[in-house]
Amino acid sequence: MKIQKLDGYTLITYKDIKLRDGVLVQGLPGIGLVGKIAVDYIVSSLDLEKVAELIGPGILLPAGNVGVFVTNQGELQLPSYKFYYYSGTERDFLFLTSEVQPTVWAQYEVAEKVLDLFVSLGGREVVGLCGTAIEEAETGVYYALATPKLGEKLESIGAKRSSGGTITGACGLLPALASLRGLDAFVLMGSTQTSEPNFAAAKEVIIAFSKLYGMSISLEEIEKVINQIREKEEEAKKILEEAKPKEGEQLPSWYV
Amino acid sequence: MKIQKLDGYTLITYKDIKLRDGVLVQGLPGIGLVGKIAVDYIVSSLDLEKVAELIGPGILLPAGNVGVFVTNQGELQLPSYKFYYYSGTERDFLFLTSEVQPTVWAQYEVAEKVLDLFVSLGGREVVGLCGTAIEEAETGVYYALATPKLGEKLESIGAKRSSGGTITGACGLLPALASLRGLDAFVLMGSTQTSEPNFAAAKEVIIAFSKLYGMSISLEEIEKVINQIREKEEEAKKILEEAKPKEGEQLPSWYV
Amino acid sequence: MKIQKLDGYTLITYKDIKLRDGVLVQGLPGIGLVGKIAVDYIVSSLDLEKVAELIGPGILLPAGNVGVFVTNQGELQLPSYKFYYYSGTERDFLFLTSEVQPTVWAQYEVAEKVLDLFVSLGGREVVGLCGTAIEEAETGVYYALATPKLGEKLESIGAKRSSGGTITGACGLLPALASLRGLDAFVLMGSTQTSEPNFAAAKEVIIAFSKLYGMSISLEEIEKVINQIREKEEEAKKILEEAKPKEGEQLPSWYV
Amino acid sequence: MKIQKLDGYTLITYKDIKLRDGVLVQGLPGIGLVGKIAVDYIVSSLDLEKVAELIGPGILLPAGNVGVFVTNQGELQLPSYKFYYYSGTERDFLFLTSEVQPTVWAQYEVAEKVLDLFVSLGGREVVGLCGTAIEEAETGVYYALATPKLGEKLESIGAKRSSGGTITGACGLLPALASLRGLDAFVLMGSTQTSEPNFAAAKEVIIAFSKLYGMSISLEEIEKVINQIREKEEEAKKILEEAKPKEGEQLPSWYV
Repeated sequence: MKIQKLDGYTLITYKDIKLRDGVLVQGLPGIGLVGKIAVDYIVSSLDLEKVAELIGPGILLPAGNVGVFVTNQGELQLPSYKFYYYSGTERDFLFLTSEVQPTVWAQYEVAEKVLDLFVSLGGREVVGLCGTAIEEAETGVYYALATPKLGEKLESIGAKRSSGGTITGACGLLPALASLRGLDAFVLMGSTQTSEPNFAAAKEVIIAFSKLYGMSISLEEIEKVINQIREKEEEAKKILEEAKPKEGEQLPSWYV
Repeated sequence: MKIQKLDGYTLITYKDIKLRDGVLVQGLPGIGLVGKIAVDYIVSSLDLEKVAELIGPGILLPAGNVGVFVTNQGELQLPSYKFYYYSGTERDFLFLTSEVQPTVWAQYEVAEKVLDLFVSLGGREVVGLCGTAIEEAETGVYYALATPKLGEKLESIGAKRSSGGTITGACGLLPALASLRGLDAFVLMGSTQTSEPNFAAAKEVIIAFSKLYGMSISLEEIEKVINQIREKEEEAKKILEEAKPKEGEQLPSWYV
Repeated sequence: MKIQKLDGYTLITYKDIKLRDGVLVQGLPGIGLVGKIAVDYIVSSLDLEKVAELIGPGILLPAGNVGVFVTNQGELQLPSYKFYYYSGTERDFLFLTSEVQPTVWAQYEVAEKVLDLFVSLGGREVVGLCGTAIEEAETGVYYALATPKLGEKLESIGAKRSSGGTITGACGLLPALASLRGLDAFVLMGSTQTSEPNFAAAKEVIIAFSKLYGMSISLEEIEKVINQIREKEEEAKKILEEAKPKEGEQLPSWYV
Repeated sequence: MKIQKLDGYTLITYKDIKLRDGVLVQGLPGIGLVGKIAVDYIVSSLDLEKVAELIGPGILLPAGNVGVFVTNQGELQLPSYKFYYYSGTERDFLFLTSEVQPTVWAQYEVAEKVLDLFVSLGGREVVGLCGTAIEEAETGVYYALATPKLGEKLESIGAKRSSGGTITGACGLLPALASLRGLDAFVLMGSTQTSEPNFAAAKEVIIAFSKLYGMSISLEEIEKVINQIREKEEEAKKILEEAKPKEGEQLPSWYV
């Protein structure tokens, strides 16, 4: 374990790595938790090793106050950016997730620290994964680009070009700042009609992502979760249906 | 494209320029959008080239949160200060506009960075364009000065001296800080009775500005917009008039 | 005029001075405006010269937003700390006033910059003038100390020792920080039962202050103001009295 | 008295000390005031000497605004972190308390300054004392760890391992940051069902703490306070009982 001070922040390195043609994949909490679920799922299903952690004054508890988590084992844990390493066949990946987004005033400084680290390890490409609120019923994956030449490749895997708007938080900021450093960069967004955790949208993002980088990620576990949620929703629906008074069983109309 | 880091901010230079007796003309969002409309119009009607962009932690999305824009072509775009270059007959101009004003805590640091850049390019004079809320019905252009000797010239083009108050935001701050560096500086304000985008007030500011610097700017397009808005307002008025119940068609007085 | 940059702040020096056994007297806006009225009055009645001004990101408009004042003569004026010089018989004084108190996050940094300047000029003693909310009907002057040995002198001019509480803002902060630099320091507070501008309380503070330093300050003008206010209040009272319905002229009791 | 500037903060050293195998014990305001009461009580009952004080822009008045306290003796006192020294038989202790927690944006920088000081004096172990909201009726002492090996020792004195959650504020932050510097660190929490000052919970923490370090601290005074509070509560209860209308004395049921 190596500890480095970076003006007010602390970088903890658990393992020294070098990235071949490195890709940084960021998935933080945001709309529908799409990006975070996708990255957490990849990290867990590929059983990736945590190689570094970044802590500091802009990375607070989810409620926005300062403090620490206590794990079920009673251990203190600072809210942090966590980096996981995956060595692919031709290029290497750094997956980044966290319990939180940085506070407003710290978004730029945290993003710059992440890019400093990533570039120093041999990084070349930055991907932001997140959700996008879209009113259409069908799920789909949208992209937005900081590097125009990537459009063709993204179209080829079936992602649709975003038709404009804003992307709040770190999901768009990190790729946009990365491109100022000459890195390739884009955002991949799973469409969601709910702001609740959306595993189906995350699955679509995982599929698009694994196509893009020729990575093989089993979908078995996330499909189980999606099915469980669907079953529970259907059960709830049935209960509600049955609870409805049948014709002729209604309360008299003068009863309020 | 040249990228420079300026403590937390990034200056992107698309084209190296030198300003002869340079004038900086700033028009940011503010009351009636007067300043921003004026500068955007001049930039568009003179078809000026963007020569530089400033991005960083104090220049956020209009809603005040961190993030990026996505263009209609699906490209990521950081909120930024944008600088456009105009080479006049005797002196050169740098027009500055943005989607936003800097956040409160960043106004001074962003203004100082703008002035650092401007002075390094050969800047001599700073003009803030914006709106001013005035209750009189007639539109007019008012000025406030950091450099007393400019009063005569401003009177000669028909601008009226402001009789006091406050100018919030960057419109007055930039000229005031500029004068501390020995630059000539003033504010030109179009009077507005509405906080809605006021193209008529912007037109008055454009006229005053072009008189002042002997610049020829066609008003054709802005007059089209003003006429379109006027026509729509008159239509709406007519519809409302017709919707009014005629004498004898009113609801009986006991009807609530 | 000399301009100095002090990390984000700008110090404008209009006149180079040296202080013999210098005293800094600060009166900023606060409860009853007592401190500001006192210092403004002394500056105006002794016709003191402004020798320096401090501007920067922590000194904003009174409403808390960034911007500039426009004077009645149409001149831009940054909100600032203003320093006035008075050369006494044995020691010299620097009077400090402003339109505003620094924002919360800037109070310490602004106070430290003031003390840097003051010490560099030969400062020895720091006085904070302000109001204190006290429920007793009679006006009086209270003191609180950072330098215990000053108590005797303050008692001798009739000031009463404060019996505890808190002093918010710069009035207590500046003397407290000054004493950490080895300067003599205390606060002189005029008691006020109103948070409205209280000229009577300010007069008491001026009297105590001038006794303390053997300074001769005419009270003629402030007494005029106090009398004018008293007369207006009495007029208003009379009008209200007369407007009261007389016995027998009251509205019938069933009238609501 | 030695004064040191630490970027915007000031460290006042009243007495030079060295800590043998030093332990830092922090008790700041928080839920039930448990940690602060415990440390204040130990400091007072062992009659410890204040050896240092830290002041600065992140340590404000309890209401969150800038200012100073005035003591009952009329002395100005900056809100501060106060350090008290206790020389034990084998190791030395530094007790830290304050009127306040640092503001949100200053928690990390203040904690780092505390650790800088502590390490420079020979510190080895950091303990955060505070309260934890637990619904069970019985009081108990819980711990959370940054250093796993300490678990056994904490269990042996009867403390229970926390089963997870969050610890807001400096109580968990300081130990967590301490462990990144290689120091041993943990949190000791007294369970409380009230957010009001809880002396009984503080007593439990004091008992656990003194067992842990083989320190002898008389509980006489805190038990007096607990008894006084209990008696007052019982009195209040009795008065309420007696005030209840007796059977047959109730108001008629139609009376509202």
